[in-house]
Amino acid sequence: MAKHNAFYAQSGGVTAVINASACGVIEACRRHSDRIGHLYAGHNGIIGALLEDLIDTNQESEEAISALRHTPGGAFGSCRYKLKSIETHRTEYERLIEVFKAHDIRYFFYNGGGDSADTCLKVSQLSETMGYPLTAIHVPKTVDNDLPITDNSPGFGSVAKYVATSTREAALDIESMCSTSTKVFILEVMGRHAGWIAAAGALSGESPQQAPHLIIFPEIAFDREKVMARIDEAVKSHGFCVLVVSEGAQYADGTFLTDSGSTDAFGHKQLGGVAPTLASMVKEDLGYKYHWAVADYLQRAARHIASKTDVDQAYAVGEAAVELALAGQNSMMPAIKRVSDTPYEWKIEPAPLSEIANHEKFMPRDYISEDGLYISEAGRRYLAPLILGEDFPPFENGLPKVAKLKKARVDRKLAQFEL
Amino acid sequence: MAKHNAFYAQSGGVTAVINASACGVIEACRRHSDRIGHLYAGHNGIIGALLEDLIDTNQESEEAISALRHTPGGAFGSCRYKLKSIETHRTEYERLIEVFKAHDIRYFFYNGGGDSADTCLKVSQLSETMGYPLTAIHVPKTVDNDLPITDNSPGFGSVAKYVATSTREAALDIESMCSTSTKVFILEVMGRHAGWIAAAGALSGESPQQAPHLIIFPEIAFDREKVMARIDEAVKSHGFCVLVVSEGAQYADGTFLTDSGSTDAFGHKQLGGVAPTLASMVKEDLGYKYHWAVADYLQRAARHIASKTDVDQAYAVGEAAVELALAGQNSMMPAIKRVSDTPYEWKIEPAPLSEIANHEKFMPRDYISEDGLYISEAGRRYLAPLILGEDFPPFENGLPKVAKLKKARVDRKLAQFEL
Repeated sequence: MAKHNAFYAQSGGVTAVINASACGVIEACRRHSDRIGHLYAGHNGIIGALLEDLIDTNQESEEAISALRHTPGGAFGSCRYKLKSIETHRTEYERLIEVFKAHDIRYFFYNGGGDSADTCLKVSQLSETMGYPLTAIHVPKTVDNDLPITDNSPGFGSVAKYVATSTREAALDIESMCSTSTKVFILEVMGRHAGWIAAAGALSGESPQQAPHLIIFPEIAFDREKVMARIDEAVKSHGFCVLVVSEGAQYADGTFLTDSGSTDAFGHKQLGGVAPTLASMVKEDLGYKYHWAVADYLQRAARHIASKTDVDQAYAVGEAAVELALAGQNSMMPAIKRVSDTPYEWKIEPAPLSEIANHEKFMPRDYISEDGLYISEAGRRYLAPLILGEDFPPFENGLPKVAKLKKARVDRKLAQFEL
Repeated sequence: MAKHNAFYAQSGGVTAVINASACGVIEACRRHSDRIGHLYAGHNGIIGALLEDLIDTNQESEEAISALRHTPGGAFGSCRYKLKSIETHRTEYERLIEVFKAHDIRYFFYNGGGDSADTCLKVSQLSETMGYPLTAIHVPKTVDNDLPITDNSPGFGSVAKYVATSTREAALDIESMCSTSTKVFILEVMGRHAGWIAAAGALSGESPQQAPHLIIFPEIAFDREKVMARIDEAVKSHGFCVLVVSEGAQYADGTFLTDSGSTDAFGHKQLGGVAPTLASMVKEDLGYKYHWAVADYLQRAARHIASKTDVDQAYAVGEAAVELALAGQNSMMPAIKRVSDTPYEWKIEPAPLSEIANHEKFMPRDYISEDGLYISEAGRRYLAPLILGEDFPPFENGLPKVAKLKKARVDRKLAQFEL
């Protein structure tokens, strides 16, 4: 069979395991060296394709590629760059096809979330109208867990494990000191629109009688009186209260808690920080001593406490993407299908991109408890398997080892392109 | 030889490994059951002794005690309760002796930082003047690493490893996105008076050419212009800048950066948060997109990423405390003595409490680089061995397992006491 090249790019916010998907894609391509010549990675995601800034992954050693499996971040560079609509920005899409043509790229693997699935679909459609044979496969990734069809998104399970572990550990700290010190601890986690990550905090305990005693979801309108009453109740029953709060916590009118008008020393609106905002309320309404933490990037980069399930799935979708492409399946995404909850079993099934692009999956209301401040049993059943298993990276001098790539660039063949 | 009971209490802020010291004390006592009858633990630290609220550790299974080695927080409860001066509050000290007498306690093991060393010394002095034979041994612990004589304090190495690991992981995240997203990342860590913890962030890289590109110490007066210039330089050279900042960062006049006058929605002074304060400055002076994280309790509770060196040392000082007591050494603390840097070797040596109580060990100026924004080679030589080795806890259902204690209470023999 004819041999052609392939292109891989990372898109959007990176995760602890997106490089495990890269590893899956690259190793699968290498196994099919009879059909795939070079696998080029876009430097800084799709921008690398537009600018013809390509990294030849064939130059990397087996060892370096294998180390991607335990390296967080996006090894080839990712970007927040959304291709605009094909109607108004046709030149960008045409440039992509032009670059692919120049480098004999016939396989396009795009590793990202919902926006990237949409881009991937458009690229595949354009290649068809332009008569350039390209097989486009989307490799799912997002800590937000908001991709449809797939049971979960690679990247989420590891954040979930980090948040549940950190909550359990911090709760033991607060509990041991609460008689004379901090009574309320607030952990702020990611999730601008969906409470998946906050929900994972609940895995730390078995019921709201254990830490975390409550969870604040963006999906549930924030009711200050109700939340404060619940915090007070937890402190009175257990001596302390641990909350996990989503950065997207909002009032009924859609105003974020972080838009509450805090100003800094220069009179600027203080950005971010729902945890300190809530802490101020605790102080104001209840007078308890509090502490707060904002995990921010630490949570999505924490490869050292990744979920083995997540790493395995991230690798598997990368590998499956290549197999799908070689099987001639175009405009698809390898999705994770849950086969059973206990014991947890899953498999990969291809899903058409048209069903994925531009659909966001929100947390079902029935995964949240009736009172809106904890998860339900259904929510726990869904979440629990995703954090299963450990996959510690190798350590050197006390620190996690990470992949060292050469990132050898491919010679440019085309004129410069302006973004 | 006569058989008597012993008392153990945890004091002050807990750590990821203070329970490893508890494990060392308890297992050593059990090995000497011919001389030590019961080992009672104070519920909530020294308050447990004052209130005669004692936990009989002999009721705990071997398995539960062994699990303390991998359980963060203070398993028996700790407290922020400083015994006042013996001159004005003699009744408290007398009460302690009274409780010890009532329960035939002749060994006093106090696990804490500088304040507790002072208490331990006073208790031992009073027992002498009151003619009650008590052997008092201090077991060192503090994430702040500010105890004198001992080369380092158990608890510090694990926070150091957490901070260095988190910095390395988050830096990979920022680096991969910096072409189109966040350019400056600020990680706030503990250390109100000393920069030991912030300094540990530097272990993430090998020089300020790698992340973290700068460190802000409480020991070095904060110079906004200089810091912003350095951030700008890092962004221009590397595309991004990672900073580790101590919560105690302060201006030349001793004002904390967090006292900069931020107010919340209710007009209250916003407490805590040097990271968001610095972030505002970055926005104001440089206009770069930023993110910030505040690790707070997560850092000192992160047993899952504990340093094996730290766990071993925490256990060893607990064990040594019992051996010292049985050898008749009173008013002592088992200190860690560094034998060599590479390969790292250490041993335990007893140090008199009179040399430890009320002496704070600050970071030597020569552990900080000349420009005050990074560590020196001497600092790196000191810090590097303390994070060596991993000691992952066992996991169950994807989460670290923690000790489950019965905490059986000892019958009270005395009248109630008012704190």
